[in-house]
Amino acid sequence: MLKLSTPLILVNLKTYSQSLGEKAVHLAKIAEKVAEDTGVCIALAPQMSDLHRVAKSVDIPVFAQHVDHVKPGRGTGAVLVEAVVEAGAIGTLLNHSEHQLRLVDLEASLLRAKEVGLKTVICSNNMAVSGAAAALGPDFIAVEPPELIGTGIPVSQTQPEVVTATVETIQKINPQVVPLCGAGISKGADVAAALKLGTHGVLLASGVVKASKPEMVLRDMAEHAK
Amino acid sequence: MLKLSTPLILVNLKTYSQSLGEKAVHLAKIAEKVAEDTGVCIALAPQMSDLHRVAKSVDIPVFAQHVDHVKPGRGTGAVLVEAVVEAGAIGTLLNHSEHQLRLVDLEASLLRAKEVGLKTVICSNNMAVSGAAAALGPDFIAVEPPELIGTGIPVSQTQPEVVTATVETIQKINPQVVPLCGAGISKGADVAAALKLGTHGVLLASGVVKASKPEMVLRDMAEHAK
Amino acid sequence: MLKLSTPLILVNLKTYSQSLGEKAVHLAKIAEKVAEDTGVCIALAPQMSDLHRVAKSVDIPVFAQHVDHVKPGRGTGAVLVEAVVEAGAIGTLLNHSEHQLRLVDLEASLLRAKEVGLKTVICSNNMAVSGAAAALGPDFIAVEPPELIGTGIPVSQTQPEVVTATVETIQKINPQVVPLCGAGISKGADVAAALKLGTHGVLLASGVVKASKPEMVLRDMAEHAK
Amino acid sequence: MLKLSTPLILVNLKTYSQSLGEKAVHLAKIAEKVAEDTGVCIALAPQMSDLHRVAKSVDIPVFAQHVDHVKPGRGTGAVLVEAVVEAGAIGTLLNHSEHQLRLVDLEASLLRAKEVGLKTVICSNNMAVSGAAAALGPDFIAVEPPELIGTGIPVSQTQPEVVTATVETIQKINPQVVPLCGAGISKGADVAAALKLGTHGVLLASGVVKASKPEMVLRDMAEHAK
Repeated sequence: MLKLSTPLILVNLKTYSQSLGEKAVHLAKIAEKVAEDTGVCIALAPQMSDLHRVAKSVDIPVFAQHVDHVKPGRGTGAVLVEAVVEAGAIGTLLNHSEHQLRLVDLEASLLRAKEVGLKTVICSNNMAVSGAAAALGPDFIAVEPPELIGTGIPVSQTQPEVVTATVETIQKINPQVVPLCGAGISKGADVAAALKLGTHGVLLASGVVKASKPEMVLRDMAEHAK
Repeated sequence: MLKLSTPLILVNLKTYSQSLGEKAVHLAKIAEKVAEDTGVCIALAPQMSDLHRVAKSVDIPVFAQHVDHVKPGRGTGAVLVEAVVEAGAIGTLLNHSEHQLRLVDLEASLLRAKEVGLKTVICSNNMAVSGAAAALGPDFIAVEPPELIGTGIPVSQTQPEVVTATVETIQKINPQVVPLCGAGISKGADVAAALKLGTHGVLLASGVVKASKPEMVLRDMAEHAK
Repeated sequence: MLKLSTPLILVNLKTYSQSLGEKAVHLAKIAEKVAEDTGVCIALAPQMSDLHRVAKSVDIPVFAQHVDHVKPGRGTGAVLVEAVVEAGAIGTLLNHSEHQLRLVDLEASLLRAKEVGLKTVICSNNMAVSGAAAALGPDFIAVEPPELIGTGIPVSQTQPEVVTATVETIQKINPQVVPLCGAGISKGADVAAALKLGTHGVLLASGVVKASKPEMVLRDMAEHAK
Repeated sequence: MLKLSTPLILVNLKTYSQSLGEKAVHLAKIAEKVAEDTGVCIALAPQMSDLHRVAKSVDIPVFAQHVDHVKPGRGTGAVLVEAVVEAGAIGTLLNHSEHQLRLVDLEASLLRAKEVGLKTVICSNNMAVSGAAAALGPDFIAVEPPELIGTGIPVSQTQPEVVTATVETIQKINPQVVPLCGAGISKGADVAAALKLGTHGVLLASGVVKASKPEMVLRDMAEHAK
């Protein structure tokens, strides 16, 4: 498999109809091709119902969008970390602004993810929350100002100070955690700006998923990430 | 496909390790075989990551364990009703005692499920909640006293009055809703007792999933449901 | 005390700064005066920290804005029904659109409220939720389309069909429940329209709390409620 | 007023019937007397409906058990920080194990509390969560292993390693934050042990509230805290 590495372009497929079912598989194959061509790591986070299909179709890292901290057994409707691994994912987002967690649940879910070897990306909305997340020790933290998510207004170019403050806070509290940023990322220049600010990659969604030509966008991003 | 019909034996696979991934597919094939042999409808509710695999492997009705009411788009980690349909499910549980919903979310999720043609089973914990659920107009209501779930102490034999009260309440408020019952159901006699009390089937989990011989248990249940 | 009666004008003080602390007491005295002058029941729902002060200062019915279903003991930060009674309130709102509850918690809170003799007003956002609420058997249901709350666009004049549908649904499912309506109610004509549609009163907030002359507004409402 | 100082004995009145209404006032007067006699700071966290009564009756620091981050206005049933100040409290608990918060809400509530000058005590269940809390910068962190709460098995004597690890983690991440510990604290020796482990006080509830002689218990604790 193409290993998880940085710089990382992590595409969250959310619940967009453009990235549902076989379309998720199609997008994943495009991402795989661009990753192979450019050598830049592109990872995907499909919906749970698409996880298995996507993971067995491509050789790039696949993430869940969320996991719960239930143990195997009684957890109707919950996302079991063992199920995520069995489906072929190698990591998970946690605490996305569209799926926010109680602090104790976040910590417990992180522990469960580590237990089964899943890489973890905690999403945060600002510097202070990034600091708290860093103290928990995930693999990555992706700071995303919620007001920019889905807007095409790139955090890396319009709120560089949020990104810089997060990078510094993480560095201070837990230097082993890798900072990412997201919100409004839709082209190569946004990725380049993000890396320049000290992050090691981006978390994005609509910029690729809703693009008329996702391959061109991904290629532009990967080229700027080299 | 074997149509959804009553009496219904609905098996919730929860997050048991015994019903994860390929084991879910295996259980589904057993259920399919028993359903074909006996003519009794057996449906399964696997985890989201197993939904597609199970649905394409068998010809019996497959349910999701939960859906959210997000619209396609921004809903990281949520269960989109369109994704459930695309994966091959024909219905969903809602408000299971392990995944309880706010009243307004339950109503909104029910509407979304209906929009895409999913059958709905609202779980309730007592007669009063069953009445409220009935007013919302789902296809089924499954009453399950939480204290009996997973115990093997069958609601239909130890708390018949809860089942009877629920059946009567549903009949009074919305006679089109089909009553089921659950909690502690683990053998044919429990199913027979449930039907005798006026329900049209059972919702169960560990009784089948954790059984040493699931086929034998399902066959016993189906025979008692005829 | 002036008894709780219909037609009812129920003023939710929310967390407005205009109705905080001693200002809540002041507003309550105004409401009491108008109630005495007109004979129309005006009730108030102050914040928890003001409940005791308000209740001991006036002779009109005082409601809590919310209660939890915790039993006396371990419930840090929760609202105990016994505490609400001790503070002098005679009822409580439940499930306000700004404080929505899980169905099972709503049912349990309703039971707890009844245990200690508190009158209950379940808030609902539409006809279907009103039906579910009616099945639970509260004393009142206040239907409030959330998009109109705080707008000054009166539900009773702009969405009469929502109010009528709710009144009919409640009548069908549980005729002992008294229908109220709310959202955008800010003058006497809105109250008159609400009563004409079959409700027995209104739930409102900003229309009185943020009015430059609350007494004049309340008097106008009470006159139209006679 | 007796200033907030350390060593601190912070008594959470929870929703115990022994500390409701006038009984809260009575307990507060006992605490005030012991504080005056011993010079040790004893603070109280009553229910919201008792906050005003307690705060105006005594000269010791009074805390809320929880605050929300709503702004003045639309927040039915929420606890407004301005209301807590108006009622006479000088601080608040946040994220108690009986009232756990989403990480983003915890951060936002902390900010709101600071805006109005409230002192903040974040409760945590273990070392990792204490670290995350420290990064947020509250005034105090009280670590309380949930399984010991209400048991009378003192964390400071039976799980000293949890306390020590929390003290060290806080020291490393944010040395300005003052560590407390709680759970099972019911006598002076437990307080002495807590201080010896590097905390600057204790958070407790039933040990005082349910004691047959609260004054004697508080006096024993205060003597051991000197």
